[in-house]
Amino acid sequence: MAKKVAVIGAGVSGLVSLKCCVDEGLEPTCFERTEDIGGLWRFKENVEDGRASIYRSVITNTSKEMSCFSDFPMPEDFPNFLHNSKLLEYFRIFAKKFDLLKYIQFQTTVLHVKRRPDFSSSGQWEVVTQSGGKEQSAIFDAVMVCSGHHILPHMPLQSFPGIERFQGQYFHSRQYKRPAGFEGKRILVIGIGNSASDIAVELSKEAAQVFISTRKGSWVLSRISEDGYPWDSVFHTRFSTMLRNVLPRAIVTWMWEQQMNRWFNHENYGLQPQNKYLLKEPILNDDLPSRILYGAVKVKPRVTGLTETSAIFEDETVEEDIDVIVFATGYTFAFPFLEESLVKVEDNRVSLYKYMFPPQLEKATLACIGLIQPLGSIFPTVELQARWATRVFKGLCSLPTEKTMMEDIVTRNERRIDLFGTSQSQILQTNYVDYLDELASEIVYVSGKSRKHSSIFKKNKFLKGV
Amino acid sequence: MAKKVAVIGAGVSGLVSLKCCVDEGLEPTCFERTEDIGGLWRFKENVEDGRASIYRSVITNTSKEMSCFSDFPMPEDFPNFLHNSKLLEYFRIFAKKFDLLKYIQFQTTVLHVKRRPDFSSSGQWEVVTQSGGKEQSAIFDAVMVCSGHHILPHMPLQSFPGIERFQGQYFHSRQYKRPAGFEGKRILVIGIGNSASDIAVELSKEAAQVFISTRKGSWVLSRISEDGYPWDSVFHTRFSTMLRNVLPRAIVTWMWEQQMNRWFNHENYGLQPQNKYLLKEPILNDDLPSRILYGAVKVKPRVTGLTETSAIFEDETVEEDIDVIVFATGYTFAFPFLEESLVKVEDNRVSLYKYMFPPQLEKATLACIGLIQPLGSIFPTVELQARWATRVFKGLCSLPTEKTMMEDIVTRNERRIDLFGTSQSQILQTNYVDYLDELASEIVYVSGKSRKHSSIFKKNKFLKGV
Repeated sequence: MAKKVAVIGAGVSGLVSLKCCVDEGLEPTCFERTEDIGGLWRFKENVEDGRASIYRSVITNTSKEMSCFSDFPMPEDFPNFLHNSKLLEYFRIFAKKFDLLKYIQFQTTVLHVKRRPDFSSSGQWEVVTQSGGKEQSAIFDAVMVCSGHHILPHMPLQSFPGIERFQGQYFHSRQYKRPAGFEGKRILVIGIGNSASDIAVELSKEAAQVFISTRKGSWVLSRISEDGYPWDSVFHTRFSTMLRNVLPRAIVTWMWEQQMNRWFNHENYGLQPQNKYLLKEPILNDDLPSRILYGAVKVKPRVTGLTETSAIFEDETVEEDIDVIVFATGYTFAFPFLEESLVKVEDNRVSLYKYMFPPQLEKATLACIGLIQPLGSIFPTVELQARWATRVFKGLCSLPTEKTMMEDIVTRNERRIDLFGTSQSQILQTNYVDYLDELASEIVYVSGKSRKHSSIFKKNKFLKGV
Repeated sequence: MAKKVAVIGAGVSGLVSLKCCVDEGLEPTCFERTEDIGGLWRFKENVEDGRASIYRSVITNTSKEMSCFSDFPMPEDFPNFLHNSKLLEYFRIFAKKFDLLKYIQFQTTVLHVKRRPDFSSSGQWEVVTQSGGKEQSAIFDAVMVCSGHHILPHMPLQSFPGIERFQGQYFHSRQYKRPAGFEGKRILVIGIGNSASDIAVELSKEAAQVFISTRKGSWVLSRISEDGYPWDSVFHTRFSTMLRNVLPRAIVTWMWEQQMNRWFNHENYGLQPQNKYLLKEPILNDDLPSRILYGAVKVKPRVTGLTETSAIFEDETVEEDIDVIVFATGYTFAFPFLEESLVKVEDNRVSLYKYMFPPQLEKATLACIGLIQPLGSIFPTVELQARWATRVFKGLCSLPTEKTMMEDIVTRNERRIDLFGTSQSQILQTNYVDYLDELASEIVYVSGKSRKHSSIFKKNKFLKGV
């Protein structure tokens, strides 16, 4: 049985992993490269290499009611959606309550995580870290990779012919912190993800004009849903999940479209997704449609070229005097401290069993926590992942054979593409309630009992299990 | 027949009055106390005495489709809702197109508008103006008062016991220009009108915390309505007006409540109006509910007292460390250049026939344009008012007897109070389509034909004619 567990990163996934380790009687050690907890959610004025970076105004997309850890509701006086500073406060209360800080080695970077020579029998790892210029090595029975996937900017400059002669300023959204300094500028934001739309909206209050360029459009949801309730408390019900699972796909996508267009008709705003038969994750933004109505943000199609000062779009319109281009084009992920073969993206899919376990390991003693993009809150998702992982490490749950896991990865990925499309931004996309159910049912199976790992796809005709 | 018309003010009402004078072959002279057109809508960094003052971010509440002058649609590339700078641009195009600037004497303040000794026969006015320190006097056949009603701040400090010892900063919303300088402050906004909610929302992005204190709550509408169309194009239809006119009041208020709660349930946000059986003007704000969900704006009841640093509310809660209080408590109006008896507010009503004509004048040669608060756009309202007024001046339309006009004023006011309540902010409130219809039908009646001035109330059982 594993005892010593290395937890890499002290963000939301790392913190809940520590808690789950303690709950299961394991001995965790967390390595955090920065000086504090909170990961992505800890705002800093400066961008730091190797660390996620958010803008000052970021607010959670999922409500506090749907986002807290299961046994630790957020304080009553917290609002429904949290400013990043408030979420960090929650992490601090959580860490304090469960006394997690004592397990964390701050300012410690993980350099290598290597299988020990006797891995096939021991399942152990050698973890090499660096702190204060000094390297250290230690042996762990298991590893939880909680280092996040919003660190490496994806900036496809090759798709923007002419960018080399563009004379304005351009940068990845990760560099963006606040609207000061952009007063009176003409700004082009590339992309229509959550960051793109947040940044476009925020800049539109200071800028002379903001353009947002999208290749494929996107559904935009408001955090305010029926009767003013938080969207996720209305959207992620068992009933709606059941409907999405039992109804034919054509009806599901029709219902989805109705639901997405409930606030405003996306066609009227130039935002209608091109592949609307896909259940692509909507972005959450309460302000974008009104900013479009005010003319403060103008929606443009794909950029086909750039000159010294202007941008040319697919519809052959040209916008002159562009001062700034913000590439809100998302992130790629990498785990430089791991053997390359362990977690990789190949054929547009992640080589992990249920987004967590590398299937080829003789011993299931390494799990990625939070390497996933659920349609709902990340909190319950990573908590269930961490609970399952720690129970697998402990031997209370077991994984199926490599072959079964590989089949599951392939099938799951096919369904993912069918539902969410092949776009690079959708590689980590999963359904919410279904995935949580799946994890939860893994947790209750105890080691040795008969398992039905892959049958889940047979039971669920349409969406379930992705 | 009147020929020479004095137009006081070159804002939206003044400009369209000039246009209507020219259309009717009259000879207008416009006196504008500032150096430029646009009135309220011309943003300036500094607050000036005797001039309306807006904050930098003000956006129109009514859409361009419903707000332009009848024969002059806004340019196609204008957005649906206009930033104040864009609206000013429209005024400039309008003034240029109809060559209106030549009638305007800028930096000229009207000191007195007095009836001439032979007024009862001539209907003429003496208008005394001041420009560059020099006074001038001229005789006019008619006067159009277009000086607006957003100049004199209403600041009921006597209702805030303790304000004298409050050590923070406090000011009327008219002093507010932009959020800079309010970073990290704890701010209390008094009132829940359009300015109050705009300012609360805007400050909430910079402030540590914003509280908005409302005695009675308010309906909040989004500019985005069904399918994403501008709210006013959905709300102000003949069909919905007809329904409001023919259905019993109980059903009308029920429908109103449904419509107002369509976006979010006001009860859940602490905003439910106390007198919800009144059809009180909703405020237009696209952001307030989301800012409440984020906790950035907190809704509080009436302030019952202030101390050096804190505010005490009706529900006995106390908010400490208040740095700033913004009194967004609206405006009163006055026309110091007119004889006091001409336009006055008495018994909670304005002494003007259809919000335009003082009934006691022997000759109908003075009209107030824009001294009104319609549920819809002010543009068509003031245009129709100006058309009617100029046709009255010209003798093409006539007014009924003083007695009939007084009766109309009283009846109209009773219905106004019945619909909108006795609140001081509702004194100028009118229905929209009904009032426009009324003005339009006045215009088509030509002088001498039989008139049915007061019968309009008999025809319309419920809401019409207010």
